[in-house]
Amino acid sequence: MAHRYQAQIYVTLRPSVLDPAGTAVESGLKHMGYDNVAGVRIGKYVELTLEAEDEAAAKTQVDRVCDELLANPVIENYRFELK
Amino acid sequence: MAHRYQAQIYVTLRPSVLDPAGTAVESGLKHMGYDNVAGVRIGKYVELTLEAEDEAAAKTQVDRVCDELLANPVIENYRFELK
Repeated sequence: MAHRYQAQIYVTLRPSVLDPAGTAVESGLKHMGYDNVAGVRIGKYVELTLEAEDEAAAKTQVDRVCDELLANPVIENYRFELK
Repeated sequence: MAHRYQAQIYVTLRPSVLDPAGTAVESGLKHMGYDNVAGVRIGKYVELTLEAEDEAAAKTQVDRVCDELLANPVIENYRFELK
């Protein structure tokens, strides 16, 4: 019987890749007076549900979905949790 | 003495708000053969570090930063964790 899993996926830029959006947010925060903030990095957060035989199968599929569509492995890392 | 905290912030669309990007990803996945996937929602994931007197002060400031800049409270929810 298939089980339903919720995946919470975090896609982040690799540390060596420049993040202009994060830099812009950091600059905006400093202009607003928050000068104790640093290291702003912006990524994507994706939620989805999938049906799979078991948790191992669900993990394998989420890995494939991330590699093929959600993340660009050249510049991004991802990690996910299943519930 | 100020302590350094890392905040991991998740900004998601409110459930009642349409998510065209999520719908497009879901449609793409179905075209790629992943027809067991549903409920794709796309949000933002923001990491930042800040210095604050204690964890309560850090929480208060991250709440303000989210309300004022990172999230649009009309259509988005946010939650965060401090480390």
